[in-house]
Amino acid sequence: MKNTIGNNVAVTIFGESHGQAIGAVIDGLAAGIKVDTDFIESQLSLRRPNGSISTARSEADKFNIVSGVFGGYTTGTPICIVIPNEDKKSKDYSEIKGKARPSHADFTAFSKYNGFEDYRGGGHFSGRITAAIVAAGAIIISALKQKGINIGTHISRCAQIDDISFSDYLSDIESLNKKQFAVLDDNIGQEMQNRIIAAKTDGDSVGGVLETVVLGLPSGIGEPWFDTLEGMLSHALFSVPAVKGVEFGAGFAIADMKGSAANDAFAIENKEIVTTTNNNGGINGGISNGMPIVFRCAVKPTPTILKLQKTVDFENMKEIEFKASGRHDPCIVHRARVVVDSITAIVLCDMLSTKFGTDWLVS
Amino acid sequence: MKNTIGNNVAVTIFGESHGQAIGAVIDGLAAGIKVDTDFIESQLSLRRPNGSISTARSEADKFNIVSGVFGGYTTGTPICIVIPNEDKKSKDYSEIKGKARPSHADFTAFSKYNGFEDYRGGGHFSGRITAAIVAAGAIIISALKQKGINIGTHISRCAQIDDISFSDYLSDIESLNKKQFAVLDDNIGQEMQNRIIAAKTDGDSVGGVLETVVLGLPSGIGEPWFDTLEGMLSHALFSVPAVKGVEFGAGFAIADMKGSAANDAFAIENKEIVTTTNNNGGINGGISNGMPIVFRCAVKPTPTILKLQKTVDFENMKEIEFKASGRHDPCIVHRARVVVDSITAIVLCDMLSTKFGTDWLVS
Amino acid sequence: MKNTIGNNVAVTIFGESHGQAIGAVIDGLAAGIKVDTDFIESQLSLRRPNGSISTARSEADKFNIVSGVFGGYTTGTPICIVIPNEDKKSKDYSEIKGKARPSHADFTAFSKYNGFEDYRGGGHFSGRITAAIVAAGAIIISALKQKGINIGTHISRCAQIDDISFSDYLSDIESLNKKQFAVLDDNIGQEMQNRIIAAKTDGDSVGGVLETVVLGLPSGIGEPWFDTLEGMLSHALFSVPAVKGVEFGAGFAIADMKGSAANDAFAIENKEIVTTTNNNGGINGGISNGMPIVFRCAVKPTPTILKLQKTVDFENMKEIEFKASGRHDPCIVHRARVVVDSITAIVLCDMLSTKFGTDWLVS
Amino acid sequence: MKNTIGNNVAVTIFGESHGQAIGAVIDGLAAGIKVDTDFIESQLSLRRPNGSISTARSEADKFNIVSGVFGGYTTGTPICIVIPNEDKKSKDYSEIKGKARPSHADFTAFSKYNGFEDYRGGGHFSGRITAAIVAAGAIIISALKQKGINIGTHISRCAQIDDISFSDYLSDIESLNKKQFAVLDDNIGQEMQNRIIAAKTDGDSVGGVLETVVLGLPSGIGEPWFDTLEGMLSHALFSVPAVKGVEFGAGFAIADMKGSAANDAFAIENKEIVTTTNNNGGINGGISNGMPIVFRCAVKPTPTILKLQKTVDFENMKEIEFKASGRHDPCIVHRARVVVDSITAIVLCDMLSTKFGTDWLVS
Repeated sequence: MKNTIGNNVAVTIFGESHGQAIGAVIDGLAAGIKVDTDFIESQLSLRRPNGSISTARSEADKFNIVSGVFGGYTTGTPICIVIPNEDKKSKDYSEIKGKARPSHADFTAFSKYNGFEDYRGGGHFSGRITAAIVAAGAIIISALKQKGINIGTHISRCAQIDDISFSDYLSDIESLNKKQFAVLDDNIGQEMQNRIIAAKTDGDSVGGVLETVVLGLPSGIGEPWFDTLEGMLSHALFSVPAVKGVEFGAGFAIADMKGSAANDAFAIENKEIVTTTNNNGGINGGISNGMPIVFRCAVKPTPTILKLQKTVDFENMKEIEFKASGRHDPCIVHRARVVVDSITAIVLCDMLSTKFGTDWLVS
Repeated sequence: MKNTIGNNVAVTIFGESHGQAIGAVIDGLAAGIKVDTDFIESQLSLRRPNGSISTARSEADKFNIVSGVFGGYTTGTPICIVIPNEDKKSKDYSEIKGKARPSHADFTAFSKYNGFEDYRGGGHFSGRITAAIVAAGAIIISALKQKGINIGTHISRCAQIDDISFSDYLSDIESLNKKQFAVLDDNIGQEMQNRIIAAKTDGDSVGGVLETVVLGLPSGIGEPWFDTLEGMLSHALFSVPAVKGVEFGAGFAIADMKGSAANDAFAIENKEIVTTTNNNGGINGGISNGMPIVFRCAVKPTPTILKLQKTVDFENMKEIEFKASGRHDPCIVHRARVVVDSITAIVLCDMLSTKFGTDWLVS
Repeated sequence: MKNTIGNNVAVTIFGESHGQAIGAVIDGLAAGIKVDTDFIESQLSLRRPNGSISTARSEADKFNIVSGVFGGYTTGTPICIVIPNEDKKSKDYSEIKGKARPSHADFTAFSKYNGFEDYRGGGHFSGRITAAIVAAGAIIISALKQKGINIGTHISRCAQIDDISFSDYLSDIESLNKKQFAVLDDNIGQEMQNRIIAAKTDGDSVGGVLETVVLGLPSGIGEPWFDTLEGMLSHALFSVPAVKGVEFGAGFAIADMKGSAANDAFAIENKEIVTTTNNNGGINGGISNGMPIVFRCAVKPTPTILKLQKTVDFENMKEIEFKASGRHDPCIVHRARVVVDSITAIVLCDMLSTKFGTDWLVS
Repeated sequence: MKNTIGNNVAVTIFGESHGQAIGAVIDGLAAGIKVDTDFIESQLSLRRPNGSISTARSEADKFNIVSGVFGGYTTGTPICIVIPNEDKKSKDYSEIKGKARPSHADFTAFSKYNGFEDYRGGGHFSGRITAAIVAAGAIIISALKQKGINIGTHISRCAQIDDISFSDYLSDIESLNKKQFAVLDDNIGQEMQNRIIAAKTDGDSVGGVLETVVLGLPSGIGEPWFDTLEGMLSHALFSVPAVKGVEFGAGFAIADMKGSAANDAFAIENKEIVTTTNNNGGINGGISNGMPIVFRCAVKPTPTILKLQKTVDFENMKEIEFKASGRHDPCIVHRARVVVDSITAIVLCDMLSTKFGTDWLVS
């Protein structure tokens, strides 16, 4: 189904970086969810480039809900959100036609679409499209919150510096969700940003790791095979541009543990079953166990750098040298954060609706 | 769709560890694929417990192709493979009813299935089910090989020891695919096995990392959003029991690189477009670029250990101590290898069939 | 998804007429549904050829539930039912290889599967496969009955004779569901059977119309576009072999009505909203309105007749004359009845599970 | 997937009658298809109300392709088409809030969406939405035509009058596709229109039957079970508002035939396999046989009539009398025609892409 994610609650995205507009259609969402346009705007602002650590492209992201919302509430029928592209400068990109920017999708797009792809600014591959995901996700994040499900993500590592760990999940999440640069320790965050600026000054870029926590997901969500909670989330998370790895709980580190250390002992706390550690990230056998869901996404350094790079002109099949110009991000980890939250919400909403039925979100 | 993976070529699995049989249905596979039952048997033998590093459960895995193959070739209609359960000892498991074995799915199964789950030997959650995936995968692996697509996996890390790196992908893959314990350096493999036995002696278990390479996948496979190559593969790979992380190319390590180091420069070699490094694992923008697809799966240590563990009896809601007995694996990394190969083949076959049509495999 | 019907509750079928076995996998069905094997057997007996109006092929239909049922209840994981083929006589069919029996699928199968199809007895196209649908449907019919949803079908027309209309839906359905030849008026039924036998004696065959009623379906089931109740049902009903038309409510007759006659006036009865007529078959805008769901399927005369017919040998591309021999049905309308009921149950169960969640059936 | 039809080529629709806009997203369509905006406009004009036999609502249908088309060709990424609602008069409809217009979806929408539905002008249930289907279908109809696949529909019956039969399929289709009122015999068409006007004068409405022919569909399209050609088409066709029956080939009439009359004999003509009759509508065993695909849709009389009708106020649970006012169609058969063509094209394009791969349309 290509540009659609989800089965019972599904989000379809469309648009190109320099086309007329981008957008998303949400289908299957329960009727009666309050749509808070301020919150959508606020979520979009978290994704928007800001200050010296981002591209200078100014994106107002004026979204327009053209269907599916009536009197401030979802109608239960498809919600189409359109975000016009305003500050597009196609001239910036005309120089790249036919040239494979290293680690970008120019060549693979050409290979897949036989030269008919919109090559301007990455076209449909542009990170710009994630604005539509964020707008759609905002409606769902609000709805999940009403059901006691909270999602938060921090930059757990950036430019080789680690953030501190969560101390209190719920209050940490609330605090993170207000921050433009989502770290648990703002001093560390400042140092990360210094390194981002240093990389930018050098015409280079940096990557990092985003760690996400989901609180309040009931136990019993996910399937034993194929539609595991890990599988469903990772399927969608690899669409966050630049994500090259997804790990749950202790993740790759669990490979080095002994079973006696890795196993999460069950216990009873306040008449609820809990685990005393969470190396499995709240998931056993593909299914949520009621503990916080914890996962991390590895985000590669932005491929666009202002250095001379070797590459090919695939239209003329010759090797060339290439140097990007124009407006670019030296790091997208901090901007990707709200995209991760949005995609997480979309996937979980779909899985919850599958388990509990369409109307559960408003019950 | 729960126990089904794939859209145009889909595999549905069924069965429980101690039920009558396990099996798989492959639907959508092209007509005219030669079915090599010896190869299926040989693939199953790679998954089978063997020697001192595995469970003592003896599984003959006598598969029975009950439909979809006629005169030695696929008919194009559903192939149902049934593998009877022969050496099941239900008595071994009766003691665990109602008890949440740490890091197993007993509690989540109970939570999801309200107590109606088949709890014997992990029921439908058992690693035993992967035999069905391997049998189904074998048919597809053969077909992909005919089209020049080769898949191989080595134990890149186990019990904290690293295997060496690939030197020549194709010959390495051929060599790996014959080995019961798939490492590139057999001396290292011996040391890994020593540590596995040591863990077993101690009643403990170890984990590891599997690294997979796919050669010959054409460029242009995958979608820019959601059904990315990474997303489709990871969706299925997290069904390999014990996998807690999936990373592509440089994976989590790429998060620490600068863009200038991480970017894969394009070049022309033998009139083909290649990249001079492969930090992106052969995938740009979710789509294959013609380079080898490279990914790694983190496999946790087997949760079943022969040590006393704290846990709960969820039927009686009380904390208990639990010690496993019976036949168990001190490590499943080496057995999971062929499951990873099989799932990889299933996903790629589906994506190739989507792009090139049903009959491409036999064209 | 080809041989799978359903999204949240899905049934996949496999097998060929003269292969080892046929069967079905039910996935997504709630845990905790009582599985009544006597009822499955009784439903299969309604489909089984019987007496002089059917083929002489003797089909014991000994089904084997190989997974997904434990202690007499569904486990929530895939239920695989295998029905071995016992009374197959491959010799009867060898004469037809390469020959396109008129109105059969021999030529289209050849065209689709490039000559690799199992041509014996219709292979995967055989009506025999419907036994698997009936077995799967029986489990679901039982479960729906527990929720107050009752399905019944009568032969509303056969060999140009009309059955009478329903007088009391519920008691009529109960009575029909016990009959081997499901008519509301048994005298009419006897006359239909006389005509079937007359056609058989003449080496010919007859068709008919099946009318189905569903009672107790809650209002609000179905989607406004595409996944309408009519669309979902018809999608599956056209898989009942020989069905060439599906109509709801007044069906094709509504095309001749004026709006003032066709419109179903709403009224209030016992504090419930009802319609005073049911020309829309209980469906407005694709969604159930709480009235009985009523539809009819046109079933063509069995294509196998014992008369000389003109056709082609598609392997040798020449025109030939062909005369069937062997065991055949002069009419399949009465045998198709329980297949229609089963498919209806499968589709509605899927749609109800989508709306109300997985566990609704056992709530 | 609710408001989405198709697997590999999928169309998602959105919008409400009196909302800001309606539209569609086409995903999975091959890159490189020429997009002829004049043809889209011309197709939309065939659906548009015209003259005295339609509603007075003036719909300019100015469509806006906001993504997926670049330089006049499809890019291979999602095509979003937005059609703003211009001539909406919400005041006309405020009187109907809470009132179940007979045979409309007001009550079922309320039942499904719990009162949050957009009730103005039928909201998402409005026939207005079909403009988006027509716009999307136009792109696909053009592409199919390039591959030699032609679709045409005539009003085979309206207001109890029959049109003549096809004499030469291809030229008849070409002629029909230019007509606003698509009949093969224009004198008959004039008489039909007279009766429509008479019904209108009487405040009443009429229905009819649409017969569709598809030429050039290769043999081998469709699946033996579930995703049969009949099942896939009917699934979507029941979304054409007011369709209550779908039949293929001889349809319901085949139920009255003997097998010896119903069977379509195969023959060889110009070295191609053909059938000498087409009672199966070009489909055997769910799969196209290379003959013209022929089917008919029963279209009910428009439910909106200007007569006093009994119904209920479901918000206040009381019986009321209701009389529509405002702008309405006395017949929608002629307007539904191009919707049927569009949906047929969408379904066939999806099935062809599944069989032959994404790029087949442009190969």
